[in-house]
Amino acid sequence: MFYRDKSKDFLKKELEKEQSVYNDILGQNINIDISRGKPCKEQLDLSMEMLNTINSVSDLPESGADIRNYGGLEGLPAMRELFAEMLEVKASNVIVGGNSSLNMMYDTIQRCMQFGVLGSTPWNKLEKVKFLCPAPGYDRHFSLTACFGIELITIPMDNNGPIMDLVERLVAEDESIKGIWCVPKYSNPTGIVFSDEVVERLAKMTTKAQDFRIFWDNAYVVHDLYDNTVPLKNIYAECVANGHPNRVFIFASTSKITFPGAGVACFATSEDNVKDALKTMKFQTIGPDKLNQYMHIKFLKNMEGVREHMKKQATIIRPKFDTILNVLEDEFGVGCDIANWSHPRGGYFISYNVLNGCAKRVYELCKQAGLVITTVGDTYPYGKDDNDSNIRIAPTFTNTNQLDVACKILVCSTKIACIEKILSEK
Amino acid sequence: MFYRDKSKDFLKKELEKEQSVYNDILGQNINIDISRGKPCKEQLDLSMEMLNTINSVSDLPESGADIRNYGGLEGLPAMRELFAEMLEVKASNVIVGGNSSLNMMYDTIQRCMQFGVLGSTPWNKLEKVKFLCPAPGYDRHFSLTACFGIELITIPMDNNGPIMDLVERLVAEDESIKGIWCVPKYSNPTGIVFSDEVVERLAKMTTKAQDFRIFWDNAYVVHDLYDNTVPLKNIYAECVANGHPNRVFIFASTSKITFPGAGVACFATSEDNVKDALKTMKFQTIGPDKLNQYMHIKFLKNMEGVREHMKKQATIIRPKFDTILNVLEDEFGVGCDIANWSHPRGGYFISYNVLNGCAKRVYELCKQAGLVITTVGDTYPYGKDDNDSNIRIAPTFTNTNQLDVACKILVCSTKIACIEKILSEK
Repeated sequence: MFYRDKSKDFLKKELEKEQSVYNDILGQNINIDISRGKPCKEQLDLSMEMLNTINSVSDLPESGADIRNYGGLEGLPAMRELFAEMLEVKASNVIVGGNSSLNMMYDTIQRCMQFGVLGSTPWNKLEKVKFLCPAPGYDRHFSLTACFGIELITIPMDNNGPIMDLVERLVAEDESIKGIWCVPKYSNPTGIVFSDEVVERLAKMTTKAQDFRIFWDNAYVVHDLYDNTVPLKNIYAECVANGHPNRVFIFASTSKITFPGAGVACFATSEDNVKDALKTMKFQTIGPDKLNQYMHIKFLKNMEGVREHMKKQATIIRPKFDTILNVLEDEFGVGCDIANWSHPRGGYFISYNVLNGCAKRVYELCKQAGLVITTVGDTYPYGKDDNDSNIRIAPTFTNTNQLDVACKILVCSTKIACIEKILSEK
Repeated sequence: MFYRDKSKDFLKKELEKEQSVYNDILGQNINIDISRGKPCKEQLDLSMEMLNTINSVSDLPESGADIRNYGGLEGLPAMRELFAEMLEVKASNVIVGGNSSLNMMYDTIQRCMQFGVLGSTPWNKLEKVKFLCPAPGYDRHFSLTACFGIELITIPMDNNGPIMDLVERLVAEDESIKGIWCVPKYSNPTGIVFSDEVVERLAKMTTKAQDFRIFWDNAYVVHDLYDNTVPLKNIYAECVANGHPNRVFIFASTSKITFPGAGVACFATSEDNVKDALKTMKFQTIGPDKLNQYMHIKFLKNMEGVREHMKKQATIIRPKFDTILNVLEDEFGVGCDIANWSHPRGGYFISYNVLNGCAKRVYELCKQAGLVITTVGDTYPYGKDDNDSNIRIAPTFTNTNQLDVACKILVCSTKIACIEKILSEK
C-alpha cells in the first residue's frame, strides 16, 4: 500500500485501528529481545558433541608441543589449516587466537595505533586518523574504532557493497584515511554480499596512505541460510594480484559455528603482516588456548564438517527469517512506501527501513510494548542515522512463537509512526 | 670451598679435572632444557579430570546467561568468587579473562598508554614513562613494558623484596615513574616473599605521579612447595587502608594450577579501576570463554579444592627442586665463593648466582654440552645483568634423571668458568 496517496480520513482511521491493536499489546506484559545477533539454545545444542571430543583418558597429540602447555603463538597447526581453507588463504597467513574475533580486531587496531604497520609511523603519532565505515554496518566496528579517537566517515552502500566511486576518491586524496571496515558476506545488517567488482576495486584502488588497510570481517563466511552459498571473491588473492599483498586484514571465528562464548577466532593476512603482528604478540601472550582449538578440530574435522554443521544451523534459523519476512510481505506487500527490507541469503540480520524520520519513534513504540530492537542509529557511525530510517532485526535468538508477537509489534509500531508522520505533513 | 684462597697450582689441577669431566659430557649428545617455568606432563595429567566435568549431556547452569553464548564481560560469577578468595579481595574487584594473565597485563599497560587511568593523561602523551623493575625478575614483564617504549629502571632486591629506600626516593621525586613490577610471592626467579614491611611501604609511599600503579603479578599465590605457605600481606587491603585504593593492579591465573595453555587468568583491583577497565574492554570483546571458566569451577570447586590440588602439584615438583639443591649443596657446600643459590619455598625457580663476570661463560659451556638454561641477563631489564652473575634454573619440566645430568653440567660449567676467571686474575 502507498500510504502517501491515501486521504487524511483514511489515514486517521488506519491510525486509530493500529492504536487499538497497540493498546491491546500493551496489556500483555511482553518481553522479547531481537536486538543482538545471538544464536539460540537449539543452535548451541548442535555443538554439544564437541564436549565429548576429549576427556580425562584422551590420547592428546604427541607430536609437537603438549597442547595443554604453554606455546604455539600462531595457534594449533590444524586449526590454522582449517581457517586457511575457510578463508581461501594458506595456513602461513593465519594466526589463530582466543574466543573473540572482535578482540583480534581491537588488538590489530591497537598495534597500528601504538606501533604502526610494517614500519609505518604509529597512528597515534599522526594528527588525524580516519576510517571509512560503509553503513548501515556493525556497531561494534564503529565503537571500537571511535574509542581510539579515529574519525569515522560514513560511506553509503548499495546491494553491491560500499559506493566505490566515493571510496576510491576519498582514499586517493586523503592520507589520513587508514582503513575501511567491511563485512563482505551477508553483511551486518543488510545481508548483501560484496560484488566481484567491489572486491576488485578495493584491492586495486590507489590509496594515498601507504599503510591503508581493509579490515575484512568475514564473520559470516560459511553462514548460509540456503543450500547455495552466494560466492564472494577472494580479497587476499585480489590484493596480491594487484600488487597490494599487505592491504587486507581478514577476521573470522567459529563463534556462530560452535559456541559464541567459547569459539575460536582468527586473523588472516600476508605473511609479512603475520610476522609484523607476531613481533608484538610475543610480548602479549605465550599462546592461545590450544585445547579449545583441538576440540574444535576433533569436532568439525574439516571444511566438509563445517558445511554439514552449518546446514544444521540453517535448518534452525531459516524458519525464523521466514517468519519475519512473511509477516512483512503480508502486511506491507511489494512496493510499500513506509517500509522496505532485505532478503538475506545468509548471516544474522534483516535490515528494515521505515519512512525517513520514523525509526526512532518505531523503536520507542516497540520498547513500550516490550520488544527490544537494536537501538536506532547503532548501525551508523556515532550512532547517527541521518535518515532516522534503518532498523536492524536479529531473528535468531528468539523462538518462532515470540517472533510472531515481535512482528506484530514491529508492524503495528511502524504503521503508527509512519502514518503519524505522513498525517503531520499533509 | 673458597676457591680464591687456593693456590694457582691447585686451581689449575681442579680446572683440568673439570675439563676432563666436561669433555666426557660433550660426547653424550645431551639435550635438556631447564630454561622456562613450564609444568611437566605429570603435572598436567593432574588436571585431566577437568575434561570430564562437562560433556554433551551436561546440565549447564540455567540461571543467568547461557555460558555457551555471548556476554559476561567480567567473567563467570563463580570464577570471580574463586579468584576473589584466592587473592583476598571481593568478587566485585575481579575481572576474569582468557587463558593468559600476561595478556591481561599487556592489555592493562595498553589501556594506560592509550587511554590513561581514571581520567589521567594517557601515558602515550607523556614525554617519558618509566617503570621500576625489581631485579632479578621476570623477563616477560620487562620485555612487555619495553615494547611500549617505557624506560626500565633496575631496582635491586634483597630477601624482603625490592630495596624500599630506593623505591620510595625515586617515586617521590620523579613523576614519570608510573609503575613497578612485582612478583610478590615466590618471586621469579629468587623465590623470596615480600615482607610485611615491604608490602606496607609500597602501599603507603608517596608517589609524585598520581596515576602510579603497582603491577602485582601474584603468579605463585598458591604455589607452595611445602605444606606451610609463606604468608604474604594483602596489598589491596594495605592500599585501601593507606588511602591509595586505586594503586594496585593484581594479576593471577590458573596456568600453573590446571593447564598453562588453557587456564583462566584474572585481573583484580579497586572497583573504580574495574569500572575504568570495563569502559574500554566493552569495545574490545563481548566476553571471555565462560565454558572454560565453568569447567575450572566444576573441577577446582573452591579454595579448599585448589589447595588440595596444589599439594599434588608440590608432590611432583618438590623432588625436582630437591635434586638440584642437594647437588649444589654437595658440590659447593655452605659459604662457597663461586656460587650461591636460593632455597625457594614455592614458585617455579631456583635463582643461582655464580662469581661475577662468569654467568655468560657458564651459559655457553652449558649450551655446548646440550643444556639450555635461561639466557643470562634475561632476569634483568634490557637483558643486562651488570654483574654477569645471575642464572635462573627452572626444574619443573624436566624429569629427575635428566635433572641429575643437568646439575652435573651446570656444576662442571660453573667450576670451569669461575676457576678460569680466578686464575686470570691471580
